[in-house]
Amino acid sequence: MLFENTFPTHRPTEEDLMSESEEKIIVPVNWPKMYAKRAEGLSASAIREILKLTAKPEIISFAGGLPANELLPCKEVRKAANIVLSDKKTKCVAMQYGATEGYGPLKEYLCERMREYNVPAEVGNVTITNGAQGAIFLSGLMFIDRGTMVLVESPTYLGMIQAWTHLGAKFCTIPIDKDGMMVDLLPGIIEKYHPKIIYTMPDFHNPAGVTMSLERRIKFAEIVSAHDDIIVIEDNPYGKLRYEGEHLPPIVSLAKEHTFYLGTVSKIMAPGLRVGWMVAPKEPVAKMFQAIQGECLFTSVFLQMLVHNIFTSGAIDERILKIRNIYRKRRDTMLREMEKHFPKEIVWTYPEGGLFLWVTTPGNINSLELFKSALEENVAFVPGASFYANGEEKGLHTFRMNFSFSSEKQIRTGIKRLGLALRKALAS
Amino acid sequence: MLFENTFPTHRPTEEDLMSESEEKIIVPVNWPKMYAKRAEGLSASAIREILKLTAKPEIISFAGGLPANELLPCKEVRKAANIVLSDKKTKCVAMQYGATEGYGPLKEYLCERMREYNVPAEVGNVTITNGAQGAIFLSGLMFIDRGTMVLVESPTYLGMIQAWTHLGAKFCTIPIDKDGMMVDLLPGIIEKYHPKIIYTMPDFHNPAGVTMSLERRIKFAEIVSAHDDIIVIEDNPYGKLRYEGEHLPPIVSLAKEHTFYLGTVSKIMAPGLRVGWMVAPKEPVAKMFQAIQGECLFTSVFLQMLVHNIFTSGAIDERILKIRNIYRKRRDTMLREMEKHFPKEIVWTYPEGGLFLWVTTPGNINSLELFKSALEENVAFVPGASFYANGEEKGLHTFRMNFSFSSEKQIRTGIKRLGLALRKALAS
Repeated sequence: MLFENTFPTHRPTEEDLMSESEEKIIVPVNWPKMYAKRAEGLSASAIREILKLTAKPEIISFAGGLPANELLPCKEVRKAANIVLSDKKTKCVAMQYGATEGYGPLKEYLCERMREYNVPAEVGNVTITNGAQGAIFLSGLMFIDRGTMVLVESPTYLGMIQAWTHLGAKFCTIPIDKDGMMVDLLPGIIEKYHPKIIYTMPDFHNPAGVTMSLERRIKFAEIVSAHDDIIVIEDNPYGKLRYEGEHLPPIVSLAKEHTFYLGTVSKIMAPGLRVGWMVAPKEPVAKMFQAIQGECLFTSVFLQMLVHNIFTSGAIDERILKIRNIYRKRRDTMLREMEKHFPKEIVWTYPEGGLFLWVTTPGNINSLELFKSALEENVAFVPGASFYANGEEKGLHTFRMNFSFSSEKQIRTGIKRLGLALRKALAS
Repeated sequence: MLFENTFPTHRPTEEDLMSESEEKIIVPVNWPKMYAKRAEGLSASAIREILKLTAKPEIISFAGGLPANELLPCKEVRKAANIVLSDKKTKCVAMQYGATEGYGPLKEYLCERMREYNVPAEVGNVTITNGAQGAIFLSGLMFIDRGTMVLVESPTYLGMIQAWTHLGAKFCTIPIDKDGMMVDLLPGIIEKYHPKIIYTMPDFHNPAGVTMSLERRIKFAEIVSAHDDIIVIEDNPYGKLRYEGEHLPPIVSLAKEHTFYLGTVSKIMAPGLRVGWMVAPKEPVAKMFQAIQGECLFTSVFLQMLVHNIFTSGAIDERILKIRNIYRKRRDTMLREMEKHFPKEIVWTYPEGGLFLWVTTPGNINSLELFKSALEENVAFVPGASFYANGEEKGLHTFRMNFSFSSEKQIRTGIKRLGLALRKALAS
């Protein structure tokens, strides 16, 4: 039996609305009073403001962390979209609601890839996320309360600082050198600060460009494995982009029970695909699915299918080789030109892979001031301050350089310009 | 000057790893102790467990909230992908990092749409999110602390209950009838519970299927507009799917300063596209961008461009008309068959639009028990309990029926089967 068989339909008239609105008391919302406490941890990203300044076409920018436009797989994605959306078996799956757990075949493929690293992952160990940033956010959502202590490298990835500060994290830091995190200092720092989470980028660190040595990885895994109350977030967006030397085992292969391994297609395919993943012990992964349900229901199955298609179409290894070759040449050009044009007081790191190198200036050069004078020379980088979780002073005398986005010609011109800005800064 | 010109490359040997691992102390992580406090608010979604039970092909399921497979725009998305990924001007934009603020042309289109509703939105009022669920989560992240009081309809959308419980919300409730939220009760409830957020679905309520009357909308807007410490989340995923009568003004058009209006393409295009949006005052929207940065950097520009292409290709109005015609017929079939086959003790709502209707049984029928016996008859629905934020008892004698996913033939067979289960339950 119906409550009512037919419903009167209301026609909203101008008068309806006007007559009422004249009587209304409208009090504006007091916004600052409304936000949740965690909003105190929100701030405009300094790097975004910086990137806006570098958007002019005359500026050669080493500031962003973008893959090269000419290497984006536009054709491959287009082909994959045509396949996925014309096959009767896949087209509705791509467009419908999907499983929070992620698209099975993609997860199985990622498990195979993990096995190459000596990690016996099963689908229950894998979560698909909105890029690796989504995985960083979700792991924070799972583990960080207001005041939770997190140990990070100094410098470290600023997107993590931003996400976890919002969720309430406090940071303690560990320095890095050319061999990555200075693991010898780890036991002392753990004892002093009792961090619950250690966030690390062992391969081709962003922003520092360095790679953690095998000895340190083994030592690191040994230390964290002895604690039942420490987890490791191993962020590895650039792992496949090694330009020389041999692959080192990821932390997750040395400390399986403690590590959340984060990967993404942003640097080997395209950031626009927004597909990242996390490989971790099954218990927290199952818990994480419950959180993803509330956060976004699921990551687009369509995008996951495109990624799966490109991964398994056979062209992915060629694609990675091609990216490596081009980025290696760009890195070499940047290193060579820096050697030629930078004053001898300036030092920088030597990246075996990834997208970045890290420059340290003498104490009398402030990198934010330098940034401004570099802009006048039509060249840009990111000043170091944004990469220090606790505003360490080193940020004032360091900056990050990206070598993946600009052509070799642009790199030659840009480094010459930057050399000029550096010499001027040193002289003043 | 380089720190070092060449880097020794470490080759991980089996011995390296084995010899070390023998000495290692490996302590498993104590997971339950590790989670953030908010994880207490996480639980497996009851509806997901229920949906798993209904996945067998012999079962006619009215349980899910899925758009019809045959109406998914597979061809249109395919065409749009080919256009976006072959045009030089757009293909790199689609695949690169995108703006946290969302894709400009899509936001401008959405502003135009809002102007039809008498809402003078500008791009600074619009946020693009990972589906409307993403917008629900983000608004919770912005405004909900542990213990924050939220007023919701009883029953209400379970994805919101799940997301906001995780973020710490407490709920107070307001009943609904055939004209939507019983707004007369609102002043008393506000005075008693001081909710900071009111979540409402005025159009074609999920799960109840009812629509808030114009009188109540005006009254509702008047009440909330008088408070500087109340915001409204107006969730409107089905607004365009009206099968009769005339469009009613959304709350956002009556209480602009207080309302976050949530929309999505999930029901008019495809859930797999994961594009939702939020229209709200500029101040909290700007703050929200900072939160999105940390959460996922940005929503896939590629998906946003596909959506924009379909919106502006001219076929969207036809598409919506087609969806409406098919869903209207399915609704009518379901209503007619229920009238025929359901015992007279059973009552249900009459939906003017959307995907659902809501059934109430006499007190001696428990809807979870009924669900089990319905499964034996190869038909399914969602028992009401999941839709009650505070576990209200009404959940035991109510259930939700979806009429968008099944064909008219399936609806006829399914309702007959459900009528049988109902008669058996009444007789026992």
